[in-house]
Amino acid sequence: MTARRNRQWLLAKRPMGMVSAANFEFREVPVPAPGAGEILVKNLYLSFDPAMRGWMEDRPSYIPPVGLGEVMRSGAVAQVIESNDESFPVGSFVTGMFGWQEYALAGRGRATPIPQASRSEPKASEGHQESTPLTWWLGVLGITGLTAYFGMLDIGQPKPGETVVVSGAAGATGSIAAQIARIRGARSIGIAGGAEKCAWLRDAARLDAAIDYKSEDVGARLSALCPNGIDVFFDNVGGAILEEVLARIALRARIVLCGGISGYNEKEPPPGPRNLINLVRQRGRMEGLIVIDYAARFREATEQLGAWARSGELAHREDVQEGIENAPRTFLRLFSGENLGKQLLRVAAPEGGAR
Amino acid sequence: MTARRNRQWLLAKRPMGMVSAANFEFREVPVPAPGAGEILVKNLYLSFDPAMRGWMEDRPSYIPPVGLGEVMRSGAVAQVIESNDESFPVGSFVTGMFGWQEYALAGRGRATPIPQASRSEPKASEGHQESTPLTWWLGVLGITGLTAYFGMLDIGQPKPGETVVVSGAAGATGSIAAQIARIRGARSIGIAGGAEKCAWLRDAARLDAAIDYKSEDVGARLSALCPNGIDVFFDNVGGAILEEVLARIALRARIVLCGGISGYNEKEPPPGPRNLINLVRQRGRMEGLIVIDYAARFREATEQLGAWARSGELAHREDVQEGIENAPRTFLRLFSGENLGKQLLRVAAPEGGAR
Repeated sequence: MTARRNRQWLLAKRPMGMVSAANFEFREVPVPAPGAGEILVKNLYLSFDPAMRGWMEDRPSYIPPVGLGEVMRSGAVAQVIESNDESFPVGSFVTGMFGWQEYALAGRGRATPIPQASRSEPKASEGHQESTPLTWWLGVLGITGLTAYFGMLDIGQPKPGETVVVSGAAGATGSIAAQIARIRGARSIGIAGGAEKCAWLRDAARLDAAIDYKSEDVGARLSALCPNGIDVFFDNVGGAILEEVLARIALRARIVLCGGISGYNEKEPPPGPRNLINLVRQRGRMEGLIVIDYAARFREATEQLGAWARSGELAHREDVQEGIENAPRTFLRLFSGENLGKQLLRVAAPEGGAR
Repeated sequence: MTARRNRQWLLAKRPMGMVSAANFEFREVPVPAPGAGEILVKNLYLSFDPAMRGWMEDRPSYIPPVGLGEVMRSGAVAQVIESNDESFPVGSFVTGMFGWQEYALAGRGRATPIPQASRSEPKASEGHQESTPLTWWLGVLGITGLTAYFGMLDIGQPKPGETVVVSGAAGATGSIAAQIARIRGARSIGIAGGAEKCAWLRDAARLDAAIDYKSEDVGARLSALCPNGIDVFFDNVGGAILEEVLARIALRARIVLCGGISGYNEKEPPPGPRNLINLVRQRGRMEGLIVIDYAARFREATEQLGAWARSGELAHREDVQEGIENAPRTFLRLFSGENLGKQLLRVAAPEGGAR
């Protein structure tokens, strides 16, 4: 065990504008031994989310920034390989913020057991499925799926027959949010970049319509598709798309502010929508969401999301890259829009069995 | 009666940018006779509100625009002088959207009786007072007072010890909103333009602090005054002040969007705040308000506001100009910031008694 090396990526410098591989530094260090009450985990899959861009900035937010010289923070699915905590047996699977590295130590409260992990290889699911692959705990059952669940149901509150629009609709959060609206009986319209993503939204996610912001006039398409206005907008993007939606909100519209990826890599944040006053005219509401506030209800959500996903009612897909050495470039896929679905990086196979 | 002339102001052309007297046209026409079920009223006071600027634009909103060639719409306190509706006796007082003219016809549902109208001359009230002057029904008990009441209590929901900021705080709506927050036990901070308005906010309205946006750095003052952030923001202004507040919101802040006077006279609306994403970080909520949605609860509100105003707990003041010929220039006072308190125009004395 002592010979084992831990390859990891540190935050080397804070980004000014677009994040790049130069913001990170690669390092190999010895794998540490767990102290009293600690466990040592081996990362299997790392999760990549646009919100991580925010963690790289040195400013107050809902969690502290990643420090310079620290391992880049990220969610992960991992396997316990040494344990000084009997509630985490060796060989069991956990999730946690284990970061861009191969091995991590976790103390009490820093790891969450994965219930009833299946032993099958993960696969993208667009049909019925019995088991719950490990990767789902970073996607449809992870932070992104949970954000979609609480954002759409608790803040958006779509009603049957209402018109719901989701930006970043092919992404890990947006795709789940848009389908929850569809499951709840609303007309669900997704906005995404590119023909392939839009085809997936129509065919696999079975949305009522998809708008390709790269090749279509978003405002004109929204006007055509939403003759009675937009009742719920689930926003992952901000910027010009938010302005186009605000121009078309229905009476008492709910805008779920989940993210604003269009501005994350700007040196100075771009101006906001010119038509916020439409919130007055239409008595609209705009509300921000951080999913950790709903931690007490995660179990309710993962049970419901898992049931929908296993029955095939909820399509989702995972974009799985390979190898810890590719962590920075995997992260950048989120901002180029290359990722198709939840962005993951596979860094190791589990021990003690074929997975 | 037939010899009587009705002087009135029509909307002559729609404003592009800053509204001016040239947007209106003066006309004299015969006073009409009421038809079956109608009443003829004589306007005593006209009400002027920033929202009227929006009614001049030809675009969909919460009420139809004023048509070109139509009498400019405004609220008024009036006296019934001819009546074909026995529920509105001659000599009684009413409110309604009677417009910029001396006389108006009103059919069923177009006038609201004023309860227990006092016969005394109105005066600015900063102390105890038994009666309810007629003008109060356009100010503290009118649309502006009601907007403050429901916006602050139903949407803002200030709690004791929370920090509340109000923009346009010396205005008819803002001054009431800021004081309701103070009455509810919050720390209440007003933003207004000029030393005189700020002195009034501190001395008469008894706010915890006032910020003069014309001579002070609003952001720096907010940082100093709100070390724990801003829990409630009641916004009448929008623009740069909204951005400064968003930069300092506390966890779960509520932003009541009441108006955005900073943009009303711009040809193209100015960009919105760059930091809407703070609504995500702080799980803030921003919600628009139109007071007509609360019509079923107006009586509750006018009773409470009247009690606060009569007891002196709620300071308010009226800026009363004189003469129907001055309607346009009285309106413009709202946008130059000249008005001190609720902007009114006295157009006639009541008949049948000294008022």
